[in-house]
Amino acid sequence: MPEVSTVDTVACVGAGVIGGGWVAHFLARGYRVRAWDPAPDAAAKLGRLVDAAWPALTSLGLAEGASREALTVTSTLAEAVEGAGFVQESAPEDLALKQKLLADIDAVTPAGVVVASSTSGYGMTEMQVAAQTPERLVVGHPFNPPYLIPLVEVVGGELTAPWVVAWASEFYRHVGKTVITMDAEVPGFIANRLQEALWREALHMVAHGEATVEQIDTAITAGPGLRWPVQGPMLTFHLAGGEGGMAHMLDHFGPSLKAPWTRLEAPELTPELRDAVVAGCEDEAAPRTIADLVAERDRAIIAIQRAVAEARRG
Amino acid sequence: MPEVSTVDTVACVGAGVIGGGWVAHFLARGYRVRAWDPAPDAAAKLGRLVDAAWPALTSLGLAEGASREALTVTSTLAEAVEGAGFVQESAPEDLALKQKLLADIDAVTPAGVVVASSTSGYGMTEMQVAAQTPERLVVGHPFNPPYLIPLVEVVGGELTAPWVVAWASEFYRHVGKTVITMDAEVPGFIANRLQEALWREALHMVAHGEATVEQIDTAITAGPGLRWPVQGPMLTFHLAGGEGGMAHMLDHFGPSLKAPWTRLEAPELTPELRDAVVAGCEDEAAPRTIADLVAERDRAIIAIQRAVAEARRG
Repeated sequence: MPEVSTVDTVACVGAGVIGGGWVAHFLARGYRVRAWDPAPDAAAKLGRLVDAAWPALTSLGLAEGASREALTVTSTLAEAVEGAGFVQESAPEDLALKQKLLADIDAVTPAGVVVASSTSGYGMTEMQVAAQTPERLVVGHPFNPPYLIPLVEVVGGELTAPWVVAWASEFYRHVGKTVITMDAEVPGFIANRLQEALWREALHMVAHGEATVEQIDTAITAGPGLRWPVQGPMLTFHLAGGEGGMAHMLDHFGPSLKAPWTRLEAPELTPELRDAVVAGCEDEAAPRTIADLVAERDRAIIAIQRAVAEARRG
Repeated sequence: MPEVSTVDTVACVGAGVIGGGWVAHFLARGYRVRAWDPAPDAAAKLGRLVDAAWPALTSLGLAEGASREALTVTSTLAEAVEGAGFVQESAPEDLALKQKLLADIDAVTPAGVVVASSTSGYGMTEMQVAAQTPERLVVGHPFNPPYLIPLVEVVGGELTAPWVVAWASEFYRHVGKTVITMDAEVPGFIANRLQEALWREALHMVAHGEATVEQIDTAITAGPGLRWPVQGPMLTFHLAGGEGGMAHMLDHFGPSLKAPWTRLEAPELTPELRDAVVAGCEDEAAPRTIADLVAERDRAIIAIQRAVAEARRG
């Protein structure tokens, strides 16, 4: 396998919203990018996407030598992976299509090169079944837009080699991503499971006439959504407990887990689960006190609201 | 009822994290605030909370004449509501306690003054049963911290007069809040239902060893959480559909509603639900094109990340 820092060319297979977003990200980080997509208008759409992203990427700061000219759109898959030190697959979410495409990519990609899939929720175990060398296939799940949202979830399948999971995690960090390396496959990984629960509850509310689309968006943008870029759902509730933190929160609001506040049944709040959540929050928070976290949250919420207001003005 | 602009004194009943946050908000907006809480250490805790909030509120800009000296902590409920033009109740989430407390507040509050409850999820119909004049009782549900998060959800109970729902909505807007006025009672209202679905999925994941507390927070803060202050879950997915918007998104990703990506069962994606979500997104987005929304989102995400990084540095 190549050292992550020696990779200078990345292949992006599939160039829709997610694949195109990866193209923009790798270009901005100074890579040569070779992209392939079977859609007839793919090159034009990809060009528009990269052009739309470029001002944001320029404002963030381009890597030395970064250029939109470093993009080559190829007419075959085999040309795309030629000379690539890493391959990112971002095809539509269709299991049979992914199984075949990953096998095709594997067949033409040089040995020792890691191939990652952007899949939103399939496990690599079910996707790698048709490949000759399944051990180099791994999930690297980004968020839209991949050129701005740092998160990538990395998880292997049963046949993925441990070094591949480690290499992909290191490579993504090297290109500026925030990586969660998962020990085991969970359908939907972590962020999409959380996001999907919220999305499904929202769809139920619209279906039942309980809220409009716009009320749902306002409920998040003017409400809990303002806290989530700075403190996730766990630390958020750590602070909802006041000076007593998550322990007080769970002991005080625990009974509301039985309330019909969503269609999702809550788990039993066993002493083990309570203690795991409390300990997790205290570990994550340390060495910051509750007062530190409150001050940090308050500074962030004010700055976030200003940032959003300015972004909306254009 | 008083004109909302003539109110100069607000009573806050209950002075924990939420009640204290309301105290800080009303003080910063230039109101005289009278607070009562039966806890023996309530005054000291409230003082610390207001002091901790004041730098943020000062940075946001205090209303003319705003002062921490405008706070009076009273030793009885009756003294707290004396001369108040609005009452905000923020007692612990306990239905029997809320029923009795709202009846007690109602008994001593001058006629024509609206009394709002901060309840996180009870309906006013079930809370107003013991009150003499239930028509002036309404839910005004804030988010923590109430002095920074703009959202307030306003909804009446069966016995609440329509003018009270309208008056409370107008008053909250007058004091700088973003208001969602709901037509009907839904347990957990809107934002908490969405947040609670996410929270319950997170607890299930911890309980099953699928993710740690810190991975859950990172999944949100480095992932979808960065989009939610600028575009809620609906507009977010409107953009995930690329140039085709929500229509393409639902037609393309609709099948993933059947995927086991959360423990919450999805609703049936009927043509009616699909069309309602698509039309809602298009209404909310107008007159902005998809390209406008992408540019707005990108500017916002960059600014949000900078804001958070700066807030974390202190």
